[in-house]
Amino acid sequence: MEQFSYYTPTKVIFGKGVQSQVGEVIRSYGYKKILLHYGSGSIKRSGLYDQIVASLNESGIEFVELGGVQPNPKLSLSRKAAQLCIDEQVEMILAVGGGSVLDSSKSAAAGAANRCDPWEFSSGARKLTKSLPVGAVLTISAAGSEMSNSCVITNEDGWLKRGFGSDLNRPIFALMNPELTYTVSKYQTACGITDIMMHTLERYFCMNGDVALTDRLAEGLLKSVIEAGSIAIENPEDYEARATLMWASSLSHNGLTGNGRDYMMRCHQIEHELSGMYDRIAHGAGLAVIFPAWAKYIYKNEKALPRFCQYATRVWGIETDFEHPERTALKGIEATENYFKSIGMPVRLSELDVDDSKLEEMAEKCTFFGKRVLKDYMPLDKKEIIDIYKLAL
Amino acid sequence: MEQFSYYTPTKVIFGKGVQSQVGEVIRSYGYKKILLHYGSGSIKRSGLYDQIVASLNESGIEFVELGGVQPNPKLSLSRKAAQLCIDEQVEMILAVGGGSVLDSSKSAAAGAANRCDPWEFSSGARKLTKSLPVGAVLTISAAGSEMSNSCVITNEDGWLKRGFGSDLNRPIFALMNPELTYTVSKYQTACGITDIMMHTLERYFCMNGDVALTDRLAEGLLKSVIEAGSIAIENPEDYEARATLMWASSLSHNGLTGNGRDYMMRCHQIEHELSGMYDRIAHGAGLAVIFPAWAKYIYKNEKALPRFCQYATRVWGIETDFEHPERTALKGIEATENYFKSIGMPVRLSELDVDDSKLEEMAEKCTFFGKRVLKDYMPLDKKEIIDIYKLAL
Repeated sequence: MEQFSYYTPTKVIFGKGVQSQVGEVIRSYGYKKILLHYGSGSIKRSGLYDQIVASLNESGIEFVELGGVQPNPKLSLSRKAAQLCIDEQVEMILAVGGGSVLDSSKSAAAGAANRCDPWEFSSGARKLTKSLPVGAVLTISAAGSEMSNSCVITNEDGWLKRGFGSDLNRPIFALMNPELTYTVSKYQTACGITDIMMHTLERYFCMNGDVALTDRLAEGLLKSVIEAGSIAIENPEDYEARATLMWASSLSHNGLTGNGRDYMMRCHQIEHELSGMYDRIAHGAGLAVIFPAWAKYIYKNEKALPRFCQYATRVWGIETDFEHPERTALKGIEATENYFKSIGMPVRLSELDVDDSKLEEMAEKCTFFGKRVLKDYMPLDKKEIIDIYKLAL
Repeated sequence: MEQFSYYTPTKVIFGKGVQSQVGEVIRSYGYKKILLHYGSGSIKRSGLYDQIVASLNESGIEFVELGGVQPNPKLSLSRKAAQLCIDEQVEMILAVGGGSVLDSSKSAAAGAANRCDPWEFSSGARKLTKSLPVGAVLTISAAGSEMSNSCVITNEDGWLKRGFGSDLNRPIFALMNPELTYTVSKYQTACGITDIMMHTLERYFCMNGDVALTDRLAEGLLKSVIEAGSIAIENPEDYEARATLMWASSLSHNGLTGNGRDYMMRCHQIEHELSGMYDRIAHGAGLAVIFPAWAKYIYKNEKALPRFCQYATRVWGIETDFEHPERTALKGIEATENYFKSIGMPVRLSELDVDDSKLEEMAEKCTFFGKRVLKDYMPLDKKEIIDIYKLAL
């Protein structure tokens, strides 16, 4: 087991109706003025906005608001949110939405607290040493940003999608009511399921093998998500399935399934260039395409093979073929691919109307223009990344 | 899934040699004067004390110290520690040891911050609203107190062992180096394994069934601990096994394996009277005796049976006998009992030299002298508690 640090200070309040506690929770921290940040306005149609406002008013929390966060959240809006925080002297940001709203909030919080361009942190030019607190009312189970240290923003200038991690990015609280996800479309639900699975899968396929406890936790989480995912797609108002997905979204990306591992989120890096370049592509859908291609590219590697076999047998219940372990491994990859298909995800770039015209440009960006090689069972440089994109065509 | 809140703010720093970071970590919080609290002095023999002192000195952290914490930590010492904190105006308590030192520290922190008798919180007379921060350098994998909200203290006046829970009891940091547990005796290691398993088992045997994700996490944790436990008993210096036990000790009692469940730690309550009455009995050993008796007493209950079957099949790999599910359930209980035996634990009161002379008195205390009934698949009042003690004879 590798050395690790694990810090998850987010106070989780989980269950039916918890959104109505938001004013009271914010008051418990002593904050009196906040920015209410949200997305497209679906929270207004659903009535959630009114519930939140009522709760804030009841607790005497003053707020300014900014909606309009889009999927693959954009730098221009988080810049605007940061400026609003400064101008209005707000003490914290309340994100009402999913990962995009959370990440936009985190980016704005960083910019506001440091009175600088939020991109400085995303680009790596500056290290985050202070930030405004962010709290969340979660409306979609996917990104896990409600407990994670990560923040991913897309800079429209060059369509660069970049993440940065800091414990200061972890929200101070997250109110999670699975019922709020009943109205998430089947497609978005499936994107979320994929994202949740991938947060654990990227960690699971680590370079070191001695991670017995973390492996078991990861396998348990994956099995639960696979079962609950199918149920939620079939019956969007199944509370237990929605609850499993929501709680799994947090646990899958707060570090729990990665503790003690030596790993890199390489499929995420490869996918970021895809949804960064083609803004219409949902991150989860991009991952459903990239993972099978990446897995088929790498699984025969001698360091990778035992992990792929363990994954196939423990998560998918595939019998081990000891004579031909690579067959066992491949069955696990195919099971994953078939599962993605079964919940309505694309598994090839062609299904996303992406041809081979920009593969080289995406790979070039993914290497930070020649400045990094992705860490994996074998180093993934531009050539290897292009090969993976090609396998995904 | 029941409503839950989950709050684990403890910063975990895990791996070889992390104890040498203690001064630096304390300084990062801005504390300048602390109480160094520890147990019997084994940390002096092992050299750990010197490492801690060197690190504190290097970081300019002033400290006063108080050793002497015993297993089943005593109120008299935590009172003394609280007074020392007040007299010396210390800002935090550093617990170097296991659950006993941690709980003594938590109790002292509560008393010092509120300038009152720490027992007021243990007895339930007063609710904790502020406390001194506690940090930990862990030397034994067992109680999980390094991340838990619980604090259990024994009042020598009447030999009452009482716990109380508060998020303010959660340590601010925990430095965990599995190597520090190499010298823990086989017996104490086995007590720790039992305690770790029991923290999850008590939660696992919950009244509600819809806890798919938490079940999978709990089962994964149990399987890892069972495997690693046998290895650590066989080879005390197996780093990976010791690391699994140490990390499992934290995860098993920080709430993770209980989220969404409706449960009560009833075996713990029944055992507390045992090690409270017979101070020579280690808590883990007491649990190894109580669990099989409790399980055999309750497993045929119609609400309990499905859980016991799931436990038997998923954790112990026992095939389900669909005609006679109670046989499957019983096999799971027997497997647990045999496992406890295999690591050197007692499984009957007679092995602890406890006869039937004080069963009624213990049961009386366990009902808080008629003021509570333990919540379980069926209510456990004095009569039922005596029956369970008798089954354990």
